[in-house]
Amino acid sequence: MSNVPYKRLNKDDAVVLLVDHQTGLISLVQDFSPNEFKNNVLALGDVAKFFKLPTILTTSFESGPNGPMVPELKEQFPDAPYIPRPGQINAWDNEDFVNAIKATGRKQLIIAGVVTDVCVTFPTLSALAEGYDVFVVTDASGTFNTAVQQAAWARMTAAGAQLMNWFSVACELQGDWRNDMEGLANLLSQRIPNYRNLINSYTVLTSK
Amino acid sequence: MSNVPYKRLNKDDAVVLLVDHQTGLISLVQDFSPNEFKNNVLALGDVAKFFKLPTILTTSFESGPNGPMVPELKEQFPDAPYIPRPGQINAWDNEDFVNAIKATGRKQLIIAGVVTDVCVTFPTLSALAEGYDVFVVTDASGTFNTAVQQAAWARMTAAGAQLMNWFSVACELQGDWRNDMEGLANLLSQRIPNYRNLINSYTVLTSK
Amino acid sequence: MSNVPYKRLNKDDAVVLLVDHQTGLISLVQDFSPNEFKNNVLALGDVAKFFKLPTILTTSFESGPNGPMVPELKEQFPDAPYIPRPGQINAWDNEDFVNAIKATGRKQLIIAGVVTDVCVTFPTLSALAEGYDVFVVTDASGTFNTAVQQAAWARMTAAGAQLMNWFSVACELQGDWRNDMEGLANLLSQRIPNYRNLINSYTVLTSK
Amino acid sequence: MSNVPYKRLNKDDAVVLLVDHQTGLISLVQDFSPNEFKNNVLALGDVAKFFKLPTILTTSFESGPNGPMVPELKEQFPDAPYIPRPGQINAWDNEDFVNAIKATGRKQLIIAGVVTDVCVTFPTLSALAEGYDVFVVTDASGTFNTAVQQAAWARMTAAGAQLMNWFSVACELQGDWRNDMEGLANLLSQRIPNYRNLINSYTVLTSK
Amino acid sequence: MSNVPYKRLNKDDAVVLLVDHQTGLISLVQDFSPNEFKNNVLALGDVAKFFKLPTILTTSFESGPNGPMVPELKEQFPDAPYIPRPGQINAWDNEDFVNAIKATGRKQLIIAGVVTDVCVTFPTLSALAEGYDVFVVTDASGTFNTAVQQAAWARMTAAGAQLMNWFSVACELQGDWRNDMEGLANLLSQRIPNYRNLINSYTVLTSK
Amino acid sequence: MSNVPYKRLNKDDAVVLLVDHQTGLISLVQDFSPNEFKNNVLALGDVAKFFKLPTILTTSFESGPNGPMVPELKEQFPDAPYIPRPGQINAWDNEDFVNAIKATGRKQLIIAGVVTDVCVTFPTLSALAEGYDVFVVTDASGTFNTAVQQAAWARMTAAGAQLMNWFSVACELQGDWRNDMEGLANLLSQRIPNYRNLINSYTVLTSK
Amino acid sequence: MSNVPYKRLNKDDAVVLLVDHQTGLISLVQDFSPNEFKNNVLALGDVAKFFKLPTILTTSFESGPNGPMVPELKEQFPDAPYIPRPGQINAWDNEDFVNAIKATGRKQLIIAGVVTDVCVTFPTLSALAEGYDVFVVTDASGTFNTAVQQAAWARMTAAGAQLMNWFSVACELQGDWRNDMEGLANLLSQRIPNYRNLINSYTVLTSK
Amino acid sequence: MSNVPYKRLNKDDAVVLLVDHQTGLISLVQDFSPNEFKNNVLALGDVAKFFKLPTILTTSFESGPNGPMVPELKEQFPDAPYIPRPGQINAWDNEDFVNAIKATGRKQLIIAGVVTDVCVTFPTLSALAEGYDVFVVTDASGTFNTAVQQAAWARMTAAGAQLMNWFSVACELQGDWRNDMEGLANLLSQRIPNYRNLINSYTVLTSK
Repeated sequence: MSNVPYKRLNKDDAVVLLVDHQTGLISLVQDFSPNEFKNNVLALGDVAKFFKLPTILTTSFESGPNGPMVPELKEQFPDAPYIPRPGQINAWDNEDFVNAIKATGRKQLIIAGVVTDVCVTFPTLSALAEGYDVFVVTDASGTFNTAVQQAAWARMTAAGAQLMNWFSVACELQGDWRNDMEGLANLLSQRIPNYRNLINSYTVLTSK
Repeated sequence: MSNVPYKRLNKDDAVVLLVDHQTGLISLVQDFSPNEFKNNVLALGDVAKFFKLPTILTTSFESGPNGPMVPELKEQFPDAPYIPRPGQINAWDNEDFVNAIKATGRKQLIIAGVVTDVCVTFPTLSALAEGYDVFVVTDASGTFNTAVQQAAWARMTAAGAQLMNWFSVACELQGDWRNDMEGLANLLSQRIPNYRNLINSYTVLTSK
Repeated sequence: MSNVPYKRLNKDDAVVLLVDHQTGLISLVQDFSPNEFKNNVLALGDVAKFFKLPTILTTSFESGPNGPMVPELKEQFPDAPYIPRPGQINAWDNEDFVNAIKATGRKQLIIAGVVTDVCVTFPTLSALAEGYDVFVVTDASGTFNTAVQQAAWARMTAAGAQLMNWFSVACELQGDWRNDMEGLANLLSQRIPNYRNLINSYTVLTSK
Repeated sequence: MSNVPYKRLNKDDAVVLLVDHQTGLISLVQDFSPNEFKNNVLALGDVAKFFKLPTILTTSFESGPNGPMVPELKEQFPDAPYIPRPGQINAWDNEDFVNAIKATGRKQLIIAGVVTDVCVTFPTLSALAEGYDVFVVTDASGTFNTAVQQAAWARMTAAGAQLMNWFSVACELQGDWRNDMEGLANLLSQRIPNYRNLINSYTVLTSK
Repeated sequence: MSNVPYKRLNKDDAVVLLVDHQTGLISLVQDFSPNEFKNNVLALGDVAKFFKLPTILTTSFESGPNGPMVPELKEQFPDAPYIPRPGQINAWDNEDFVNAIKATGRKQLIIAGVVTDVCVTFPTLSALAEGYDVFVVTDASGTFNTAVQQAAWARMTAAGAQLMNWFSVACELQGDWRNDMEGLANLLSQRIPNYRNLINSYTVLTSK
Repeated sequence: MSNVPYKRLNKDDAVVLLVDHQTGLISLVQDFSPNEFKNNVLALGDVAKFFKLPTILTTSFESGPNGPMVPELKEQFPDAPYIPRPGQINAWDNEDFVNAIKATGRKQLIIAGVVTDVCVTFPTLSALAEGYDVFVVTDASGTFNTAVQQAAWARMTAAGAQLMNWFSVACELQGDWRNDMEGLANLLSQRIPNYRNLINSYTVLTSK
Repeated sequence: MSNVPYKRLNKDDAVVLLVDHQTGLISLVQDFSPNEFKNNVLALGDVAKFFKLPTILTTSFESGPNGPMVPELKEQFPDAPYIPRPGQINAWDNEDFVNAIKATGRKQLIIAGVVTDVCVTFPTLSALAEGYDVFVVTDASGTFNTAVQQAAWARMTAAGAQLMNWFSVACELQGDWRNDMEGLANLLSQRIPNYRNLINSYTVLTSK
Repeated sequence: MSNVPYKRLNKDDAVVLLVDHQTGLISLVQDFSPNEFKNNVLALGDVAKFFKLPTILTTSFESGPNGPMVPELKEQFPDAPYIPRPGQINAWDNEDFVNAIKATGRKQLIIAGVVTDVCVTFPTLSALAEGYDVFVVTDASGTFNTAVQQAAWARMTAAGAQLMNWFSVACELQGDWRNDMEGLANLLSQRIPNYRNLINSYTVLTSK
């Protein structure tokens, strides 16, 4: 039995951090297939937009071999703070990044990135140490292989981070389908093929 | 070494919660094969009935694409509280659901559902925060893939939930085979083929 | 491009051979989970009955540790030829077994058994050598592990056997859903949980 | 060493057959993740359109639980022959389907469908027996699990079918990148995330 | 950083508990291959004997389908307390079993059994609650599948049990090779084929 | 349908070839766990002895890093031809080895070795080319990983070798249990733990 | 039994073809881990050099996103024919490539490339059709995932290609260790860590 | 939320411990492929050298079958303390080893070894108990199989160790790429093939 109240994700207190989803770095990811990973990352972007969460993008050396942030994310968030870090590996070491978070006044960090064991784990540990609640989107974060993934998840869990996936983030923020049923169903339909199939079967049958 | 007494499942203090095992939603489950999953869910239903545990069923939008609760469960529990939620994703946000639990006066929640990371995890975290003991039936709960499953298990474990499987739930409730040997053996025989084989081999040999 | 006509399974020319599905021997099977395997074997039994195919059962030393044939199969085929072999490992070496096949006048053998590499492979090779067409039901045949399974499949394929699964056997025999739509749908609904879910979702929606 | 000339896929002799990719049936597919499978099927659709291959769509009982063909495919091919089969399981048993193929005057069949062991395997065997060359798009065809998949692949290979994947189909039809480099690159970029990343990295660097 | 001293396994304070390794029940084990499991269980028996640890054996209904304890273990420990439980599922509920432990005066429990989620987990939780240190020999304990295994391991870890394997138990008890180098090397050589190979290669080269 | 008679393994025409099971080389094997592999190799040795098959052992540079043949095999066959090859990688290139085979006058070669893709594949291809029937014992042959294993199996199958496992070799040679029931049961009991368990359960029940 | 003589790899008749191992394309490979794949490709390069086999390198659009050939290969073969193809996907469609092969006068093609299903499969099928013997180095050829890999292997096998791995290529070319023991041992030691360990253990013991 | 400050790895407070990476013992490692493991271990060596971290090497009975430390590590650290332990299994029981650590005055231990469950776990638990921070390099530590690996990871995590991988160790020590961009990029390029490919692609494009 837990003795702490369940701190739910709250769309008025949450901010999304997208760390180093760059065209070069993603070639290092092998714990998800490329199609799964792309779908998960863009789904998380969809969720951030749908709930109008402040979203902060950051990259590491995008002019070098790491490559630019994937264009789809940039297009999803044209007005978001975008912080190309000049050298700090842990994004939390970059003042602009932390200030962008602080400027939102929010305390719930939803984070994903490439690679999990570095670009996600380091800022997660730093933020937890400063009192933030951190929710790691495990399936929108990728790394070299599942052994590395499991070790990174264990390290973050031990430090107090909560492991989630993009779908549970969406559902916890939504709370009640009646808040915007069509909107959420549309989002899920784009990113979960079997859910789309259910909706299509249903629509055909009920429109007869 | 633990410094808390072992709180065993107790058939006089336990209640079973079956959350969103719906014909449409189950098509999202890929961390168990369909046959394994069906067997596990119905086995949990058998256990609830065998020990006469109060059981509460709930669904999410069963008139839409999510589909109705699987009929076998409805047939197993024709008189159980049945709460179709009008929109709340976390069943704990539905007053009728929580009141049904409170009406039992019991504090041990045995929970399973679809999908694990949402329909099981959210009420688990809520119930733990309110002081209940929560026992998650991992193999009667399904989700998109094992990566999502593992993250959800870790989140619930960190919050104080206990991970179990339907067989260990049955055994912990039974306590002593002599309480009803034939009854339990019969239940296990229906759901565990290798156990049934043992019994059949034995029966033939000893009836000669 | 093949230069032989496609020999389809034909319900007037096919016979089903169930070899050594015994309560003891099945404990050796580890290439399918016990629940999957049980479901597949009984599904093949359902198919044989549904299409009224002559079916022949045989066992190896059922009075010893190998145990009796699983009772469900015996119950499905109370009047089928039942040949407990006194010692022959390859069922084809047992005259009664071969005579039972010959008595049907049929040339298409649908075979499944335990273990794949012996009880299925040996009679398959023998029957092929005598000019029969042999269709191996791979998912109703089990063995020690997937390495053994793969080697046995390769050996039988090289000898001219066709690898199938119980579902494709059912569909090839049915040919056209209109031959008995309700009957086949009912059979599939019992053995394929996701298909059952589709039917249940559909029925609810169309009965409104 | 082979003693038959290599028959390459030829865009003037090939026709694409999409069999039973229906919203209900796809819930049976578990040998590919839903996202992988959706991507592969739509990629094959893209290939058919890009090379202007005649394409034939067929479904099985789309008014029942099997559900309608996935809408994306219907939208890709609004003018293609579309043959809802009234009952034949093997599409080759449907005269309209075979006539639609014959009307193209083409002899190379590129086929994909759900489920592999029935809806793909049966017409493949029938077509091979009638002298067609059949190219199975393995990754745009799905079924219950990998054991069933492997058995179906072995059966079709033994009968003379060639196993391919959507990407190799695209490349064999293209032959030379110079035939339409931008067009093919665009297609691949939509369906292969790591290829898209390469292109994006390259474009940024070379446009500086 | 831990704030408790490392409590090492100590051959003067440890006792080995072998729970329900019965000929019938073992047919339920599928998270280890039969050969691996047999080797691990007997290796743990070897370790108990080598370090002269008091060892307690217990079974559940050995006259019924569960079958007798595997004879090799009985032969290894002819004089050990042997407690056939008349019905208690949790061995800790059997007074004779607990008294046998108390009679040793030892506080470190090394436990293994079949199945992990019941026969190992239940007494582990009970013993931890009474202040014992419990060391679970994960690879000499088996259960239905790895999902059940992982849930049981998580439950025991959360309660304070330490997860080990038979080899690390042996090494922690030995402490220093010089305590009996030949004896331990001989034990390992019997149970770890690659270690045996190293020794054989070495012996040949150095005896020239 | 095959048009060749089924050539069964025949204990009067078969010879066993054990190639390069050396203490050093075995450390290269990773497609089977060390315990599984050791058990399979020794089981094949047991089979050879049980059926009194002529058996030929050969090694490659046993005085160097490859190490000596595993001593258990040497002990099983103290009087067998033992041919340490001075350099030939393909054992068939060694005259003494081929002569030892020819001296038996037998035409069915049962072969196993380390590593599969070289020490088994090369002599298999050579022997097939000279008209021998070759039966590869896949589970007593090991190599670097399953990708290499699968390629080697495919190469040998294409050349006409038959893939078997030690258990199917034993059963095909035995033919009829009545030839020596106790002997074979004893052999299997030593090498197949679940079979031993069946026998032990049976013996206890029937000796009451 | 095969009725063709075994055509061994012969260092006087073999030529090595390295197709499209380019820095960009390799990011598509996911059926081998990046480290395994790099090691296998360079090992094949080592083998080609060690046996002084003529080696031909070719690339596809190396000025675009596909990237240049990996520099290590270029350095290994500074004087080899190097054919950057202007557009042909199947290298066999490039006259310079085929002429380079013909110029060697050799008929045994050892081929590896990226991706397996296109850059390896297409020229393999073309070469087989023209009467060459083709040996595919499966572990130095990579593609999107194992499903694609398996389909490509099956297609090439059916057309008459032989599946090998770099190690078996090396051993078949060497024939007899005595041809250059130190040279080959050195090569293997660089690419097979466990072999290197054997040699190091041996060297220390025998130099005492 | 964590209530302890994040203790980062600090190159002025960290020391690297390499335990028992010996040529014989490594043949026991099966949870990583030999190539992966070798690459990871040498990469950790590279990291230690790059950051000039004091590094301590120790072995267990290197004159016996365990074999000598792998020569590459010895060559990387010719002047490092090198402690061949005369018998202590837990390196922490060896005074010289602990004194070598104390002599550095550092409190952050970065540890890797063979096998994980013994040679890494035991000193980790001992060091944690004495107040050190311990960072386990999971991918440079190997053991018998993943079940043993997972149990050992869980035991160390529960005791307060942090699970890392060599790449995250490198990045956490580096902190900011600008500290030595070329140096780190060079290190990564040697050990991460896909990163090397990115750099090579980039270099070619930007040098045009």
